[in-house]
Formats: sequence, structure tokens, C-alpha cells
Amino acid sequence: MTDSPIRFGIIGCADIARKVSRAILLAPNATLSAVASRSIDKAANFAKANGFPPEAKIYGSYDSLLDDPDIDAVYMPLPTSLHLKWAVLTAQKKKHLLTEKPVALNVAEFDEIIKACEENGVQIMDGTMWMHHPRTHKMKEFLQDKDRFGQLKTINSCFSFFTDPDFLKNDIRVKPDLDALGALGDEGWYCVRSILWAADYELPKTATALRGPVLNEAGVILECGASLQWEDGKTATFHCSFLQSLTMNITAIGTYGTLHLTDFVIPYQEHQASYTASAKPGFNELVTGWTPLPSQHTVTTDLPQEVCMVREFAKLVQDIRKNGAKPDKKWATISRKTQLVLDAVKASIDKGFQPVEIVN
Amino acid sequence: MTDSPIRFGIIGCADIARKVSRAILLAPNATLSAVASRSIDKAANFAKANGFPPEAKIYGSYDSLLDDPDIDAVYMPLPTSLHLKWAVLTAQKKKHLLTEKPVALNVAEFDEIIKACEENGVQIMDGTMWMHHPRTHKMKEFLQDKDRFGQLKTINSCFSFFTDPDFLKNDIRVKPDLDALGALGDEGWYCVRSILWAADYELPKTATALRGPVLNEAGVILECGASLQWEDGKTATFHCSFLQSLTMNITAIGTYGTLHLTDFVIPYQEHQASYTASAKPGFNELVTGWTPLPSQHTVTTDLPQEVCMVREFAKLVQDIRKNGAKPDKKWATISRKTQLVLDAVKASIDKGFQPVEIVN
Repeated sequence: MTDSPIRFGIIGCADIARKVSRAILLAPNATLSAVASRSIDKAANFAKANGFPPEAKIYGSYDSLLDDPDIDAVYMPLPTSLHLKWAVLTAQKKKHLLTEKPVALNVAEFDEIIKACEENGVQIMDGTMWMHHPRTHKMKEFLQDKDRFGQLKTINSCFSFFTDPDFLKNDIRVKPDLDALGALGDEGWYCVRSILWAADYELPKTATALRGPVLNEAGVILECGASLQWEDGKTATFHCSFLQSLTMNITAIGTYGTLHLTDFVIPYQEHQASYTASAKPGFNELVTGWTPLPSQHTVTTDLPQEVCMVREFAKLVQDIRKNGAKPDKKWATISRKTQLVLDAVKASIDKGFQPVEIVN
Repeated sequence: MTDSPIRFGIIGCADIARKVSRAILLAPNATLSAVASRSIDKAANFAKANGFPPEAKIYGSYDSLLDDPDIDAVYMPLPTSLHLKWAVLTAQKKKHLLTEKPVALNVAEFDEIIKACEENGVQIMDGTMWMHHPRTHKMKEFLQDKDRFGQLKTINSCFSFFTDPDFLKNDIRVKPDLDALGALGDEGWYCVRSILWAADYELPKTATALRGPVLNEAGVILECGASLQWEDGKTATFHCSFLQSLTMNITAIGTYGTLHLTDFVIPYQEHQASYTASAKPGFNELVTGWTPLPSQHTVTTDLPQEVCMVREFAKLVQDIRKNGAKPDKKWATISRKTQLVLDAVKASIDKGFQPVEIVN
């Protein structure tokens, strides 16, 4: 096999698929080959509006796209409740899977998806774009610097955005039969991932939901928070909400240093992104100012983070196709841990804010 | 009486007294008149090292300073466990009181101090310097802007600094007989104050300590956190620690806007301080960037925040002295609410992280 681009098919025409279609077009090792919707008109319009090449195929059902032998990989931006069925089928059709998050409604479903992927030798990756930004790798270097950052002690993460009455009534993310995890699945996923990322993917021992979550009438979470505790004393808190201003903060504090950024999920600008690193900060002699001051670091990137994601995913698929490599389990492992923590937070809310043990 | 400067006496030569001595020297309406220590040599050395005027009096006991008729006001940087005795005596000697925080070990003690101040018609203010920075007033304007910030939804506040083994063994802030509240009293005080400040001093309904606090062998808090819940659904979290890198963040999120700063207790620099205001932030069309971007605001100040504090306190005392005004109860009210929340957090830790109701 050659290094030819990975041929993507998209099942579902959600808003986020517009951004990922563009990313597939921009990725050097990927190509947009097909789109499927339950409505063929919708699929055709989507392809037209999003710059699909003229040879791209338009399908009126997900099944028919999955049956197309000229598709290598599927991008799946479907509502979470549909993931189990279509992810498993995608794997069974030997297509690699780039799926929107949350990957599943819970770990039991997640494990069924993973089982299908493993049995069929396909790569899975979830669509957490910020993981692939070069800024993320630079920040990780700081977190791993034992002299400047020291040992991780606590992390606070927040992701929220304000939604209008139409969203709160009609969006799939507030519907119990579609995205039953609500803000926890849509936003909390990123918060939990950022916490696990900072903690080198060491799972916390317990999760305790914070009092005061907001649920809609159908029981879907519109706002919640949690605290996490590790065996070694590390702690974390996060907060996610559909009911307040757009905010995307991570503060990771070590014994010696502090990492901070305020646009972790989607950087303010596409081609550069910043963070603040404070290494061994202290006070001047009279405690009237800081020394040294935190330093701001800007990382430029030719490719937007979602393109980096598609490129990384396609590279893994190329490696499987060309070299007979095994699927990289790193991404499934990270996704599963994220899902485990979400499950525990949800369980803690259901149990009246009692701590819930997290067992891998 | 004239507008002559308020004559300050300092009882106790703690490190923080150096900074406040300088502030009294710099404040246009205050003067350094005396210092007392249990060791007269220590008092003399302190006066010499901190630029006291030659006519300033040196006392070898707190009592003798309090008996000096030429002292209008006392600055009290004593360990918290000594506050009750000396604050009450200060009031009984008709001297106005600028006291370090926490004001008391608990609200019961606090109320005894306030009673003495009220009975003797003296002004009380606690030493929370950042409250007096002009930046604080500018940030408040943003929080009160219903169009740009909206309704306050959640606040996260963090104050920590890394201490060495000597501090953790010997500092008064880790001694159960001196500053029994430890990091909660020394740092959490600021976090709680920042939360109350953002919430227009509306008391939360409950406080729930977060799991995983760190206490030393004597039971003094070295690190802890809590979540707060209000009747109307507002929430807050804070984290304070002696065991991790210097960090001072406030993130206050409203329905429409987000206020953010990372040096709230002590600004990075003395004469200017910044904050970020994000008003109605959203995404660009393809959700690959923010629009509008948050705006950074810098506030300059001729006088450092601790000088603003001394000036404000001295102004209130001048007003009492010259115009027969009543002591301004605002500061006692704010202090008491802060103390009430600290009490509840402490109680929640003692009760195994159960929520504790806060009753005014």
C-alpha cells in the first residue's frame, strides 16, 4: 500500500462536522470522500456548503456509507446515544473511527465500542482537538519539569458557554434520549480530560460532585462541578455549564510552579496560542510585588488544532494500512479514563454528592 | 479637632508590620508614633529598621503603648489567638483598630471584639489590602454591569504559596496555639473575601469543604478547599495551600461575562495592576476562534494598595475625631461575613465534608 491520503466518510451533518470537514480538507494525509445523512438532500447540501471535492459520494443512510469499500475512516459527529450502534458497526465494517465526544453514554457502552474496534483491528480516537495543538505539548514540558514546576498538587478546570432559550429547549445536548450527559458530556469531558492530562493520566481515586448542579426537567445536566482526589493527595476541581459566559480555564499548580491558560478548548486565534508559566514565583523583599513574574509563552501553528488531530489520526491509520502496525491504544486508554471519571461524577450527583470510587 | 494625621501605634513586630509601617509612612493622613514588642530591644530595632521618625516611642509591652494618650489608632499584626485579648483592650483604651486577618479564631471571638469596638465608639478594619486597590473598584464596575457581565453565576478563587520545612515546623501559621486556622485563616480568608466581594457580600447558604485537606500533626490546616452554595443557585469554590506554588487567581463568571485575574492578593507590581474582562464572548462562524477577544485592563495607582488601606482607615478615624461621625460599620460587616464562612468551612472539615449552613 502507498502513503495515499486516508479517505474519510462523515456520518451525520452536525455543526461540528463543518469544522472537521475543513480540517480533513486541510490535513495533508486525509481526503473527504463521502458524507451520509438520513436525508440525502441534507448530505448533498452539506457537501456543497463545505467544499467537498466533486467526486465525493453523497449517501442517504449511514449504512450505505459504511458499506462503501472506498472509505478508510469514519468521522462520527452523531448524538451520543447513537454512538454505540454506529461505532460498533463502523468497526465491524473495518473502518477506523474518529468519533465526537463523549465517546459513549457510560463506560459499559464505551467498552462495547472498544471491543468492536479491537476485534476488527481499527484505530479509534475521540475528537478532543486541543490535545493535538502544539501548545499542549509545550505546556506538558513545563508540567514535567521537576525543577521549575515540581510535583503536581492541584488542578482547576472550567469550561462553560452561555446558551439561549432555543438551545435549552431544542439542542440535542439537553435531550435525555440524545446526549443524556448534557453539559457534563459536552463540556465536562474537556475539563476531565485536561485534569487527566495534567496528572499524566493517573486516575483519581474518588470523584465527589459539588452541590448545586442544575438539571433540566428531563434530568439532563445543564451545569455541574466536581472535586477529584488522588491516592497521593493531589486534588482537582472542575466546573461546566451551559448557563454562563464562555470560559475555558486551566490552572495546574505544582509545588514550585503554576501553569495557566484561559482558552484551552478552542484557542482565541487559530494560528497562535498562549499560556502562562510561573516557575518558583515569590515576593520581593517587602512583599509588595512578585519576583520573578510569570512568563507568557506563545506557540504558533501552521495547522489549526483540529487539522493536527486529523493528521495524527490519519497517520496512525496509514501506519496500520501500510506497515501492518497495530492500532495505537493510547487514545482509547485516555478516552476510557475520561469516560470513567464522567461516570463517577454522574453517579456522585445521583447519590447526593457522596464520593464515588473510580475503579479502572 | 484638626485634620492632623492619625497617630499609629504598632503592637507586635511581625514581618507584615514592615510593609504596613511603610504604608503608614506613605499615607498622607497617618503617622508612625509608636511600636511595642514584648522585647524593648526588638521594638527599638524594628523602629530603626523601618524608618520610624526619631520622635516615635518605643515600648517594651503592648499595655504601655495602649496607655499612651498620644496614640489614635493601633495596627495589630499579632498571632490570631492573641487578637481577642488585645483587640478588646485596644477598643477599651479608645483606640481605633486596624487588625491583621483573620480577625479572630471564630465568630464568637469576633463578636466579642466587635462588641468592644461598638461600646467604645472605635473604628475597626481588617488588613485585607487588595480591597483598597483602585483595580478592585474598576473590577467591581464590570461585575455590576448587567449588560456586559450579567448575573453572577460562579466564582473560583485560589491563593497558595510554597513554604519551606522551616515554615512548616516553626511559623506561627502552623501552630495550634497561635494561628489555629492555618492556611484557611491566612490564605482562605482572602479567597472567601474575594468570593463575598464578587457576590456583593450576599452570604452563601451552605459551605461544604472539599475532600482531601492536609492538616499537620497538631491539626492545623495546611491546605484545603470548599464549595459554597447560595439560595439563588450561585456557587463558588476556593482552594488555599501552604504546599504549592504561589498562585492568586479569581475567576468570576456571569451569565454574559467573565472577570479574571491572577494576582488578586498582591499585584505583580506596585503601581499598576491588570485584569481581564470578557464581555459576551462567542465564537467565529466556524468555531475556530473567539470573538470578541477578552480585553485586558490596566489600572495605575500612585499609592500601593496597603497605603490606600491605611489612608481609608485614617480617613474614617479623622471623620470620627473631627466630625463626631459614627464608626463605619461596613468593614466590620464584611469581616464578620468572611469569618462566618471560614467557621463553616472549618466545621465542614470537622464534620467529614458535610454541608454546613451559614447563619448570619
